[in-house]
Amino acid sequence: MRIDLNADVGESFGAWTLGDDAGVLDVVTSANVACGFHAGDPLTLRTTCHDAARRGVVVGAQVGYRDLAGFGRRFVDVAPDDLAADVLYQLGALEAMARVAGTRVAYVKPHGALYNAVVHHEAQAAAVVAAVAAYDSTLPVLGLPGSVLLDAAADAGLPVVREAFADRAYTRDGRLVPRSEPGSVLHDPDAVAERVLHLVRDGVVRSVDGNDVEVEAESVCIHGDTPGAVVMARRVRGALEAAGIEIHAFAG
Amino acid sequence: MRIDLNADVGESFGAWTLGDDAGVLDVVTSANVACGFHAGDPLTLRTTCHDAARRGVVVGAQVGYRDLAGFGRRFVDVAPDDLAADVLYQLGALEAMARVAGTRVAYVKPHGALYNAVVHHEAQAAAVVAAVAAYDSTLPVLGLPGSVLLDAAADAGLPVVREAFADRAYTRDGRLVPRSEPGSVLHDPDAVAERVLHLVRDGVVRSVDGNDVEVEAESVCIHGDTPGAVVMARRVRGALEAAGIEIHAFAG
Amino acid sequence: MRIDLNADVGESFGAWTLGDDAGVLDVVTSANVACGFHAGDPLTLRTTCHDAARRGVVVGAQVGYRDLAGFGRRFVDVAPDDLAADVLYQLGALEAMARVAGTRVAYVKPHGALYNAVVHHEAQAAAVVAAVAAYDSTLPVLGLPGSVLLDAAADAGLPVVREAFADRAYTRDGRLVPRSEPGSVLHDPDAVAERVLHLVRDGVVRSVDGNDVEVEAESVCIHGDTPGAVVMARRVRGALEAAGIEIHAFAG
Amino acid sequence: MRIDLNADVGESFGAWTLGDDAGVLDVVTSANVACGFHAGDPLTLRTTCHDAARRGVVVGAQVGYRDLAGFGRRFVDVAPDDLAADVLYQLGALEAMARVAGTRVAYVKPHGALYNAVVHHEAQAAAVVAAVAAYDSTLPVLGLPGSVLLDAAADAGLPVVREAFADRAYTRDGRLVPRSEPGSVLHDPDAVAERVLHLVRDGVVRSVDGNDVEVEAESVCIHGDTPGAVVMARRVRGALEAAGIEIHAFAG
Repeated sequence: MRIDLNADVGESFGAWTLGDDAGVLDVVTSANVACGFHAGDPLTLRTTCHDAARRGVVVGAQVGYRDLAGFGRRFVDVAPDDLAADVLYQLGALEAMARVAGTRVAYVKPHGALYNAVVHHEAQAAAVVAAVAAYDSTLPVLGLPGSVLLDAAADAGLPVVREAFADRAYTRDGRLVPRSEPGSVLHDPDAVAERVLHLVRDGVVRSVDGNDVEVEAESVCIHGDTPGAVVMARRVRGALEAAGIEIHAFAG
Repeated sequence: MRIDLNADVGESFGAWTLGDDAGVLDVVTSANVACGFHAGDPLTLRTTCHDAARRGVVVGAQVGYRDLAGFGRRFVDVAPDDLAADVLYQLGALEAMARVAGTRVAYVKPHGALYNAVVHHEAQAAAVVAAVAAYDSTLPVLGLPGSVLLDAAADAGLPVVREAFADRAYTRDGRLVPRSEPGSVLHDPDAVAERVLHLVRDGVVRSVDGNDVEVEAESVCIHGDTPGAVVMARRVRGALEAAGIEIHAFAG
Repeated sequence: MRIDLNADVGESFGAWTLGDDAGVLDVVTSANVACGFHAGDPLTLRTTCHDAARRGVVVGAQVGYRDLAGFGRRFVDVAPDDLAADVLYQLGALEAMARVAGTRVAYVKPHGALYNAVVHHEAQAAAVVAAVAAYDSTLPVLGLPGSVLLDAAADAGLPVVREAFADRAYTRDGRLVPRSEPGSVLHDPDAVAERVLHLVRDGVVRSVDGNDVEVEAESVCIHGDTPGAVVMARRVRGALEAAGIEIHAFAG
Repeated sequence: MRIDLNADVGESFGAWTLGDDAGVLDVVTSANVACGFHAGDPLTLRTTCHDAARRGVVVGAQVGYRDLAGFGRRFVDVAPDDLAADVLYQLGALEAMARVAGTRVAYVKPHGALYNAVVHHEAQAAAVVAAVAAYDSTLPVLGLPGSVLLDAAADAGLPVVREAFADRAYTRDGRLVPRSEPGSVLHDPDAVAERVLHLVRDGVVRSVDGNDVEVEAESVCIHGDTPGAVVMARRVRGALEAAGIEIHAFAG
């Protein structure tokens, strides 16, 4: 029994730092490294790839909308041809950083509003998939189970990796409770750790209204943008290891 | 006897178009494609790489300062570590576009103010060289003969390619007459064509004060950003071909 | 009987020029000057305000999404507080340029995808209105008749100015035929000139399916981004003047 | 006897926060608010102007190079016409934010590499002065005593305000010890507080080699970008107030 842990890193920009990347890289097996369009200046990306490679953490491309001011968190109605080119550009840029760090980009995960859009937006999902497939048809796509993105990626022959969220509440349909609703984000490290263990061992999470819901995932997304988040991430990893579950990257 | 012809392309950005790229790609053997930091949006880069590859034109990375508003034409005192990361980022981004177009980035040429800076700025020249060497130690660097950049590239074991300028006046020392001085840019297509032929066949240009100056170059830079420039470029190529000189890329 | 003619200007950016601003400013009475977020570098804005002021053309703020790469033509789901601040920022920036040119920002017109969004997007329309009202509650808002924007502006006590489009086809409901449909844009200068004359004199346009539709407008939007567009603009103005209609700015 | 205390604020950008602005605004009398070119998104600027106005802190425009990735800390060889337009744009943008907050931009202070450049760079200093003078010839310029900027501002009839630095070492010539040298920045809050008191009361600072140097200043620059910096700022203010010195803005 094994699972991958992924988290966002490399999101600092110039004089502005964000997140405890070193703390996160000590916990995860897959690092979603920003690619410069919504976060991450080139030197940060280079350093982050180096720090990931040094720890044996697999590098993935955290591609997003071209929107530094919005941190990629607002939907942009970009045309499919432009979006595909934007994804390729980001993939290649991060690949150069990974390459000089002695590793490579081993998967792709859309970020922020793009992540949410490609759950249902067919044209944008198709554009992301087309870009990845044109670049490297063996590159896995990491995303939400049941999303249009993963369906389109599978149809295109790309490896598909499903993720669950450690600290997010689920509905009885196995969807995420929207962030705008109360109780959507969980804060107790022990409860979250136990929950992730349940998910990985039994394929089940307790929904917000008390039902057991089946959730299949090869990776669990954790956060590291606050000191508390890193503590929670360590607790999650500790609980899994104590239960004999192997923490292992899905790629690389 | 053979020579390469290079020109800048891919410098449009979003709604703004610049230059007659199709006209230029019909003439040159090496295309210096912008990389998005001073010009070139991702879709433009992708299309340009495709159009170059379809014509058998070799793609090079026209790397520049991160300065869209200045088109890379103003010196930026960027720290060497940042500059090296900026160059890597641009190289990788363009490589992705070249790759999906069925070709690859076959050389690097700094653009605009960066080109001028690395003629003499040792730290920035070293940063560019370090980036290229880390990325691919077989990648040629195209630049000004006698520049610190080419010296540093050669010291680092990178292939070095020297270029001459078709439409620029030279001093008796074999340097370019600064653009700020009268007569620094030549405008008569026939005179320029004859001049390039002289340069390629005899390794000599007539300086601004009437002396014959030795100029060694494996590539000649031409321009294509105006309709007249493309006419001149065609005239140059025609004159070389009529004299039996082979027009051939130095790389690829 | 009088009418205002408005057009977009100041949309060049750095090395990239767009449109024949001088040609447009010779025809219109109101200039929608870009404000730097989707187009227009500061020197272009300053020069454009100067050129408008010299001709007695009124300056308006063409505010848009923060998206240079998309030229403001793609919807961005920006939060209302951010959008209001973005509009204020652009208003103030252009005001400085207008002020040193001896004039002032005399109205506001959203651009591109923002223009289209605030036809129906209540939160974004409210944000634009709130920004304008906070800045100067006497500043007119120029927009589409029947739009949520103009309703919200009127509710907030802002002067409201309705515009018609010289070269766009209308449905029988008085709406614009979407650009994606055939026949949505008219190209014959004489037909367009006659059509605008009919609109101004009689308050009526012939719809795409042959009905006379009432359209009330205090301003007519013309284009100037191609040489043909300026010819058409001149023809429109000529036809109006020949019919004794006064061409006069609604503001300033 | 009175003195002004100034500090940089409003330097957050989107998802990235920087500095303890609330802590700083509780101590200073003049707030150098970023203007969006090197730092500060529009909503941050609006909020910062509001927070300053609420406390009675005077707002100044912290204008800088157009370089978010470099935080305005690297010299950009921007042409004077462009620089003047860039300064006007920033001034106007911040003015809009100040205006809706019930205050106004009451002075101008260049930031970072631009601050350092206009100590000696005549063309850039002249461009900054020309922009301020064109915008409002009564607007004070805050800068380094003896700088080309302040000389040019005085020549243009602009009010000139000289500043000293609380935590920087001085040479025996009254210049700042470059940051690259050891001991250039002072870290002991009590020593710094005593030093500023000496400066304000006696017009003298102890140089790095132990001499008393005359320094004339109407304002003292303090920092607030770290928790320790705010503690130091409070200590400085406390020492001045305890000595009966009035802490009062030079403008507004």
